Amino acid sequence: MRSIDDLDTPAILIDAARAEANIARAQAHADRHGLKLRPHIKTHKLPYWAKKQVAAGAVGITCQKIGEAEVMADAGLTDIFLPYNILGRAKLERLKALHGRVTLSVTLDSGETLDGLAATFTDAGHRLQVLVECDTGMGRCGVQSPDEAVALAREIAGAKGLVFGGLMTYPAAGRATEAETWLAGARDALAASGLACERISSGGTPDMWRSGEDSIVTEYRPGTYIYLDRYQVAKGVGSLDDCALTVLSTVVSHPTPARAILDAGSKALSSDTLGLADFGELLGIPDARVTGLSEEHGNVTLSGETELRIGERVRVVPDHCCVVTNLFDEVHLVDGDKVLETLPVTARGRMG
Amino acid sequence: MRSIDDLDTPAILIDAARAEANIARAQAHADRHGLKLRPHIKTHKLPYWAKKQVAAGAVGITCQKIGEAEVMADAGLTDIFLPYNILGRAKLERLKALHGRVTLSVTLDSGETLDGLAATFTDAGHRLQVLVECDTGMGRCGVQSPDEAVALAREIAGAKGLVFGGLMTYPAAGRATEAETWLAGARDALAASGLACERISSGGTPDMWRSGEDSIVTEYRPGTYIYLDRYQVAKGVGSLDDCALTVLSTVVSHPTPARAILDAGSKALSSDTLGLADFGELLGIPDARVTGLSEEHGNVTLSGETELRIGERVRVVPDHCCVVTNLFDEVHLVDGDKVLETLPVTARGRMG
Repeated sequence: MRSIDDLDTPAILIDAARAEANIARAQAHADRHGLKLRPHIKTHKLPYWAKKQVAAGAVGITCQKIGEAEVMADAGLTDIFLPYNILGRAKLERLKALHGRVTLSVTLDSGETLDGLAATFTDAGHRLQVLVECDTGMGRCGVQSPDEAVALAREIAGAKGLVFGGLMTYPAAGRATEAETWLAGARDALAASGLACERISSGGTPDMWRSGEDSIVTEYRPGTYIYLDRYQVAKGVGSLDDCALTVLSTVVSHPTPARAILDAGSKALSSDTLGLADFGELLGIPDARVTGLSEEHGNVTLSGETELRIGERVRVVPDHCCVVTNLFDEVHLVDGDKVLETLPVTARGRMG
Repeated sequence: MRSIDDLDTPAILIDAARAEANIARAQAHADRHGLKLRPHIKTHKLPYWAKKQVAAGAVGITCQKIGEAEVMADAGLTDIFLPYNILGRAKLERLKALHGRVTLSVTLDSGETLDGLAATFTDAGHRLQVLVECDTGMGRCGVQSPDEAVALAREIAGAKGLVFGGLMTYPAAGRATEAETWLAGARDALAASGLACERISSGGTPDMWRSGEDSIVTEYRPGTYIYLDRYQVAKGVGSLDDCALTVLSTVVSHPTPARAILDAGSKALSSDTLGLADFGELLGIPDARVTGLSEEHGNVTLSGETELRIGERVRVVPDHCCVVTNLFDEVHLVDGDKVLETLPVTARGRMG
C-alpha cells in the first residue's frame, strides 16, 4: 500500500475516517431533529462521498451547477436539488434532459427564470418541482418579501409542467433565527393564498447545529460539514482534529529563522480566508501560520521555537476547504500515513 | 463561425488582437532596452501563446512547475526557465528527463536544494544551469545577502553536473530600484570571487516598464502583460481597453435595483483582489462593480442609473487574470463577438 511519502506535493489528503465520522454526526443530528439532510456536494465534488452521504440517510444531494448534477447522475445519484436560477436555452435543454433521468428540483426568484422553465417544461405528467428562493438576510439572490414569494409560487403552480415545491433560503451566517421568522411569514402567506408549503430548505454548516425540533426548516443543505476547515473550527463546529482535508506540502525554502516557504500557494490553498487572519495553519505545529500567499508559494511565519527543515513535508489546514477542492484534479483518501485510494475530482471546475 | 452568444456562461474570453498587441508592445520595449524577454506562462498556461511570445522575440519561457514545463516541452517549446527550488526524488527525476529534452535552467537558495541537484545532475558533458535566487525585498524565497549568494554560486560552480547561471529575483512591487542595488552588490561580490554573472533575471509586469538601458537586469520574466487586468490598470500599465481577458457571465438575479447577481463567483473570478477594492468591474458599464463573491454567485452593486436585465450577458474584467485562467478548463479566443478558436488550458492545475 502506498504511503503519503510516495505522493508528490502539493496534494490533497482526506482523512477517510474523519470524513465518515463527520457524515455520521450530521446525519444523527438531522435524524434526532426530524430534519431531512440534502448535502451540498460543492465541498467534495466526488460521487464517492455523495453516495456515502445518501447511504448514511441523506434524502438526496444538492448541486449548484448542471455540470455537477450531470456528473452525479452519471454516477448513479437519483435525487438532485439545484438551488439556482437556470437561464438560457443551452442550460434549459440540459436541465430537461436531466429531469428525464433523476428526481430533480430547482429554484427561482424572478419571472424571467419562471418564463424559461415554463416554456421548457410542459409535460403535466412529469412536472418539474420548483422552489422559490427567499433572501432572508444574505443579500444575494432571492425574493425580498413573502408577498413576492406568494406571487411567484402562484405562477409556478399555474404553469402546466411545473409544480410549486416550497421555499428555499441560504441564510446569512449566524442569522438562522431571522431566516426562520421570514420563512414562517412566507409560509403563512402561502397558506392564506391556498398554497401548501411542504418543503422549506435551508443551508450553511454552522447554523445546521442550531436547527432544533421547533425549526420551520424541513430540509438542510450543509456542505462543509464533511471535511471542516479553519473557518468551521472558528465557528465552533468542530476541532482541528475533526478536519478531514489537509494539503500536503513541502518546505522549499527557509530564508530566515522565522520564515519558511511552502510549495502550496494560492493555486493550492486559494486566497479565500472567509475573513480569518492567515491562510491556514500547519497540523501539529501550533506556532506556524501561513501568513502570505503568492500563486506558487506559501509564506509560513514561525512565531515560536519551531524550525522546519527544507524538504520536510507538512500538512496545512486551509481556511475554506470547498475552494481548495476545486483547485485539484485528484484527492487522496488516507488512513494515517497510508493512502487508501486516489480519486479524480470528477465534478471539479464545472462552470455551467 | 460561432458567436460569443453561442457560449455557455461563465466563460473566459480572450481578445486575441489585444493579447497580440500586448506581446508586441512588451517585446518592442525589451528590444529597445537590450533586455531579453522570457515570459512567464502562469498567466495564460497555453502553448498557443507561449509560441507566439517566442515567435515575437522572447528568448524562451518561464514556468513555475515541472508539470507546466512538461506541457510546454511537449508542445515544442525548447528553452525553459524554472525559477523554483526543486526538491525530492520524484521531481528531480522529472527534472532530469526534462533536461534531456530542452534547454533548461533552474534556481536555488539553499544547500539542501543544491545537494539534490548535484546528486541528480552528474554529467559534466551536459550540465544544468543553476541560478541563485535573491530576496531583494519581496520577503519570499531567496538568499538574504550577497555573501550568501556568492557562497552558493561557488558550490554550484564546484558541482560536476551543474553550472552557475547567474542571479534571479522577484522584486517586491514597485521596489525595482532596491533590487538593482542589491543585485549590483551581489554581482560585484561574485566578480571579486572570480565568478562571472552573465544572467540577471527579474520579474513582475509593472516594473518591467521601468527597466531602462541602465538596468543591471539582463532578462525579464513578465507574466500578466499579455492579458492585463484591473490590478495592472491600477498600476498604470495599460487601460481597461488593453485588457484581453474578460469573464463572460449571465445576470441570473436582480433582487433589488442596486443589486444584480452574476453566475460568476469565486470559482470563476477567484477571491484574489491583490489589495484592490471590489472583485472586478463590468466592461462598458462604469457604474457596476462586483462587490461580493460566493462560490457560484457574484454580487454586482449598481451605483448609478444602470439596470441590468435578468438573462443579460456581461463581461467582467477581473482583478487578477492569472488566477482566473487556472480555474477554467478552456478559453475562447475572440475577435469582437466572433469566437475564433477554443483552446484547452493545457498547463492548468499542474501542481507538481
